Amino acid sequence: MRDDHAIEKQASDQLATARARIAEVYDPNKLAEVGKRVVDLLAAHQQQIQAGKGNVLNWQLPTELIDQARESLGTCSGKGELLEQVTSLVHKSLDHGTNLHHPRYVGHQVPASIPLAALFDLIGSVTNQVMAIYEMGPWATAVEHAVIQSVGGQLGFDPGSFSGLVTSGGSLANLTALLTARNIALGDVWNKGLAGRKPPPVIVTHAESHYSVSRAAGILGLGTEQIVRVGLDSERRMDPGHLDDVLNYLRNREVPVIAVSAAACATPTGAFDPLDEIAEICRQYGVWLHVDAAHGGATCFSERHRHLIAGIEKADSVVCDAHKMMFMPALCAMIFYRDRQHCYATFHQDATYLFDPSAPELADYDSGLVNLECTKRAAALGLWGIWSLFGSQLFADLVDVTFDLAAQFFEMLTAAEDFEVFCQPECNIVVFRYLPPQLQAASDDQCDAFQLELRRRVIESGEAYLVANQIEGRSYLRTTVINPLTRSQDLADLITILRKYAQPLLQT
Amino acid sequence: MRDDHAIEKQASDQLATARARIAEVYDPNKLAEVGKRVVDLLAAHQQQIQAGKGNVLNWQLPTELIDQARESLGTCSGKGELLEQVTSLVHKSLDHGTNLHHPRYVGHQVPASIPLAALFDLIGSVTNQVMAIYEMGPWATAVEHAVIQSVGGQLGFDPGSFSGLVTSGGSLANLTALLTARNIALGDVWNKGLAGRKPPPVIVTHAESHYSVSRAAGILGLGTEQIVRVGLDSERRMDPGHLDDVLNYLRNREVPVIAVSAAACATPTGAFDPLDEIAEICRQYGVWLHVDAAHGGATCFSERHRHLIAGIEKADSVVCDAHKMMFMPALCAMIFYRDRQHCYATFHQDATYLFDPSAPELADYDSGLVNLECTKRAAALGLWGIWSLFGSQLFADLVDVTFDLAAQFFEMLTAAEDFEVFCQPECNIVVFRYLPPQLQAASDDQCDAFQLELRRRVIESGEAYLVANQIEGRSYLRTTVINPLTRSQDLADLITILRKYAQPLLQT
Repeated sequence: MRDDHAIEKQASDQLATARARIAEVYDPNKLAEVGKRVVDLLAAHQQQIQAGKGNVLNWQLPTELIDQARESLGTCSGKGELLEQVTSLVHKSLDHGTNLHHPRYVGHQVPASIPLAALFDLIGSVTNQVMAIYEMGPWATAVEHAVIQSVGGQLGFDPGSFSGLVTSGGSLANLTALLTARNIALGDVWNKGLAGRKPPPVIVTHAESHYSVSRAAGILGLGTEQIVRVGLDSERRMDPGHLDDVLNYLRNREVPVIAVSAAACATPTGAFDPLDEIAEICRQYGVWLHVDAAHGGATCFSERHRHLIAGIEKADSVVCDAHKMMFMPALCAMIFYRDRQHCYATFHQDATYLFDPSAPELADYDSGLVNLECTKRAAALGLWGIWSLFGSQLFADLVDVTFDLAAQFFEMLTAAEDFEVFCQPECNIVVFRYLPPQLQAASDDQCDAFQLELRRRVIESGEAYLVANQIEGRSYLRTTVINPLTRSQDLADLITILRKYAQPLLQT
Repeated sequence: MRDDHAIEKQASDQLATARARIAEVYDPNKLAEVGKRVVDLLAAHQQQIQAGKGNVLNWQLPTELIDQARESLGTCSGKGELLEQVTSLVHKSLDHGTNLHHPRYVGHQVPASIPLAALFDLIGSVTNQVMAIYEMGPWATAVEHAVIQSVGGQLGFDPGSFSGLVTSGGSLANLTALLTARNIALGDVWNKGLAGRKPPPVIVTHAESHYSVSRAAGILGLGTEQIVRVGLDSERRMDPGHLDDVLNYLRNREVPVIAVSAAACATPTGAFDPLDEIAEICRQYGVWLHVDAAHGGATCFSERHRHLIAGIEKADSVVCDAHKMMFMPALCAMIFYRDRQHCYATFHQDATYLFDPSAPELADYDSGLVNLECTKRAAALGLWGIWSLFGSQLFADLVDVTFDLAAQFFEMLTAAEDFEVFCQPECNIVVFRYLPPQLQAASDDQCDAFQLELRRRVIESGEAYLVANQIEGRSYLRTTVINPLTRSQDLADLITILRKYAQPLLQT
């Protein structure tokens, strides 16, 4: 009996100690103090990096960095003053990250995002406002609806008749839209599955569509071999004539078509499909048109460039990533359905503990009903905040400035005799090769390996960041001018840097 | 010719103006100034809310809030001083959000997260450090690997032989793990798809598994009818004897089993499946065991409660959400594979522009190869930061304190004659009904409707937040004590609040 008491007392003491420790961690004064320190450190970092000081990337091998990251987990707690510890952790994080705001970062389709947008994200993450059902995140829900309505309107959808949602990334967005298309094309597939179904259905897609499209075929149970790639025209755009042939062939053989997936623009080259013509063909065949406008959707804000996506409002589903050409921090991907009811075809499912029969009229605002994620972040807060502060003109500016920089880079490369440009860019993606005289006699394979090796040396040097890709089996260098702070001179410097790191390679 | 010049001049002027506007938006001094303001506003808000001042939720209808959110998009830019505008936008966002840090928030499995964790998220979102390939987010990658190794070790996996990743949410994590299991169980399904395959494969699952499991069957092309639910024991845990029967039945009929999906714990009741026994049965049948430990995985940190997940290290795949019982802001879901090679079975795909043949040894660190997301957030930074500052003891504390609060709540409800508790809680989920004497003669349907209506009145009052669920067709009230700042008195107050809002309902 006395022992029981002693044990109970000990347990109760332990819990009291635990509560005290937790109260300290949750202290709002610490949030204020540490928060301001973190903000100052970040602002100082951005000042340096945006001015082009330091490296784009301080290259280190993964194993070394993982050891460093593990080290601080092992030596935890009570090792000094909180502010100092935080400062050291922030420095670690900033010293080893890729600096997307460096003017010589011209890499993947991930932008030098608008730093102020992150402060709206912070509202969501301090208060943990999330979505799934309306009542858990009323404001997050409202903001998402407002943003979706505004961007959808800008894309040309008919106000009141379209719907949309925000999800965690373009790949997930493409998957969601193609899942919706599959369920609509195949009737009872959601419940019954694909087993036993013949002939096997297909997805028809741009020959160079993003890998998430063929992955979707794998995930959705269609099989990646059920991807039918439509031939391209001379500018690497989906050829409408070829699309017509493909759909005709499939119809004659009674092969169900889940969707035609067009690109605006294609990842490797930045080519924009002729959406108007494609939409008309899809309409004739009664096939769902999906447009992966993850990158190019934001041209809808630009008077200069919106012609590139003319016809997009005729698509059944459109994906547009605000974390690409709207310069939001990752992730804020938008999916649009021309017919607002189609969003309910994605899933056909109850979750009674979530979706409340006592207020069925709220279900339209429960994101979990239409989103692959259950709990999801308040991912549209940043976009809403920046739009509210600066208006949609900013999004036009960002498109115009970066597209113009890419055009300037194209001119520079064209003028340089030792560079070969793949094609004139339609947007801010420029594809090229470095082919100095020493490589004239080299084989194709040697030229390919040279591009990759050159890029590797450049990025590991930290002087610039660019990427590589393959088109029809050949390797190219590829830049996305997706930092609006990049200047013409930075692009000229990139050419100099490439030549510099090519030298030792050419001598071996 | 002169006209051309004029047009060119105009275009160039427009671009110069655009550049100037962008430079102002990106000004690091503004980031510092606005950042500190936002931090102060958030800290002041947390101070109020954590002290229980104000409402848990200021209820408003979605249409009203959407109008408010749209309004600021329409009246954009140049309407006053930046700091004032930001202040107003932050207030809007805080006034209309659900306050998870209010001590009477005891709702969904979404925590009153550790506020300081959000500051590490901020590093990621200001600098836009992302993952997909190692070189784009070396530090984000390192931090994720460090965290995965540490949590996996804590779960009991053999160091060096398991692997894992972080993804955007538990639903996505369950989908990814079941996709992996499908591909391993069915051989060439990734390429060939499911069409024509007989007999149709199944997923065997806890009868009350989270809706993301049956959704996964729908998404993956299996069909939701191919979910086989295993009967539960008297405590709502998967019955191992019944599992054995089910697997035996399926084997006799040569039905391929993708996976057995167990729960730790089940969403509706918080019941933990007997993983040790289940793992042994799965081993005997050679079936993949997936454990959805989104909620309960974090008990691995608690000496007191880790017995609940004994045997979890024998599972083939495990999902654990750091944004649940590790109290991270959304989203940071972890997937673990006991056999490290299994992560490569999720996709079988090249993306040559991403994954670089010039450095194949880096591919192990390219998250895009194993993750459904392509670009993904640096979602583990918060967990890494908090762990580094306070050590893993904090995670034990959080589990112990909230589980203890739930036990106290259970005692209160049991002592109250007008409440009926569904079962003794194993964790921090408590399921109950309010059944005052006036309802003794009511039908089951009336009692169900009463619970839902009562809950709705309470949450719309803003005095407390709790949820509802259905078990075997009956409606219950359900709380998750997932705010470690909740005190015993708050739970007593919740009981009072429920009685108060029941009064007018009982009179009608």
